[in-house]
Amino acid sequence: MGIDSTNQTGIKAFVFDVFGTVVDWRSGVAREAQPFLKRHAPDLDVSEFTDAWRREYSPAMEEVRSGRRPYVRLDVLHRENLVKVLAHFGIANASEPEIDELNLAWHRLDPWPDAVDALHRLKRRFIIAPLSNGNIRLMMDIAKRAGLPWDAILGAEVVRAYKPSPRVYSETAEILALAPRELCLVAAHNNDLAAARRVGLSTAFVGRPTEHGPHQTSDLKADEAWDFVVDDLHELATQLGCAR
Amino acid sequence: MGIDSTNQTGIKAFVFDVFGTVVDWRSGVAREAQPFLKRHAPDLDVSEFTDAWRREYSPAMEEVRSGRRPYVRLDVLHRENLVKVLAHFGIANASEPEIDELNLAWHRLDPWPDAVDALHRLKRRFIIAPLSNGNIRLMMDIAKRAGLPWDAILGAEVVRAYKPSPRVYSETAEILALAPRELCLVAAHNNDLAAARRVGLSTAFVGRPTEHGPHQTSDLKADEAWDFVVDDLHELATQLGCAR
Repeated sequence: MGIDSTNQTGIKAFVFDVFGTVVDWRSGVAREAQPFLKRHAPDLDVSEFTDAWRREYSPAMEEVRSGRRPYVRLDVLHRENLVKVLAHFGIANASEPEIDELNLAWHRLDPWPDAVDALHRLKRRFIIAPLSNGNIRLMMDIAKRAGLPWDAILGAEVVRAYKPSPRVYSETAEILALAPRELCLVAAHNNDLAAARRVGLSTAFVGRPTEHGPHQTSDLKADEAWDFVVDDLHELATQLGCAR
Repeated sequence: MGIDSTNQTGIKAFVFDVFGTVVDWRSGVAREAQPFLKRHAPDLDVSEFTDAWRREYSPAMEEVRSGRRPYVRLDVLHRENLVKVLAHFGIANASEPEIDELNLAWHRLDPWPDAVDALHRLKRRFIIAPLSNGNIRLMMDIAKRAGLPWDAILGAEVVRAYKPSPRVYSETAEILALAPRELCLVAAHNNDLAAARRVGLSTAFVGRPTEHGPHQTSDLKADEAWDFVVDDLHELATQLGCAR
């Protein structure tokens, strides 16, 4: 697949990983955490705090993926993880409403600069939707604040499972009444794409080399020959022949 | 609640019944069925055919609501109902692809004239989403074709149950992280609103006196003192103080 090959691809819908792929979670969470940390831990580096919170993300979901715990939405996991991280840094005097409020940091993330315009281009010719581990309200709040023009909010909460569990991808194709190859996952993470490809989805890698900050070592390049490999979402829209 | 009472209402999100409330299903299905009937049953009245197809709608969902059948999406029920109705009218020579295509009639319904603009007004201040028995792809196709600016697609498929089962309303409030009264159902059907009110949702009745054609006898007026009673969605937006 490549330039002007739209008809050959047969793709009808693009679904997107969101944290890291569409929005810059690290800068956003750091910005939102700053006033809280100023009050409770003025000497703590805000990026260190953000990274520590994010490190709890995958292990928390793994409890659900493994079947040890029934599905709970990501807002719940984020809050549990936050309580852990606060304890880790010895922050003991935050009130429950303050913790609730800080947990909403994930609802207020800014998109990467190319995302909004490129999604508008793609939307004219394709179905577009998030396929994130974030819950529906979380995805909706990000979209409403940032102007992401999704056609629907799909993802973990709709199928009650977390990526990269295979059924997140396959049941999403079913919901869209598409054959797996007619559905393309767009992600900045090779493991997400690999899981999607395993159940037959089309795949697009978008490089986000500063998702984890200036010293990122993972996902700097495509590990497999994904169907599309692009530097931003405009490049994807252009390869698909979407008008500017 | 009434004019300029936005703050008192405490409503954060409006969810909408779609068939009859937001879109005119009867004219749309009739229009889509016309070429098919011209080929297969030129003497059959297209409105009679449309009404017969729709009459199967509620009994089919009742199989799921009663627990006699696990949840299947509405596209599946619509197709089963269509096969029944074709048999009833003695139409035996339609091909499977023709039947599939006719079943998509429900994906191509026009909104009532006020709907698109009024939803844009409401969207600036509230979360807006369908809360329909239609499945996600069906709702998305209608929205994409008509330009309905939903923030998300909620409803039967997300919770895997059909209205008026109480959990459709209560689980939707949970998904939106809202108290029931912060969520308002907008519908042209008193029974839908009654079920929503029973679990604590706010309620808005919009009159659609020609949903069932010129001789409609049901839902011509509000049967209870719903929180809002309006003649169209612009009137609702205006009562809520939404700018034009």
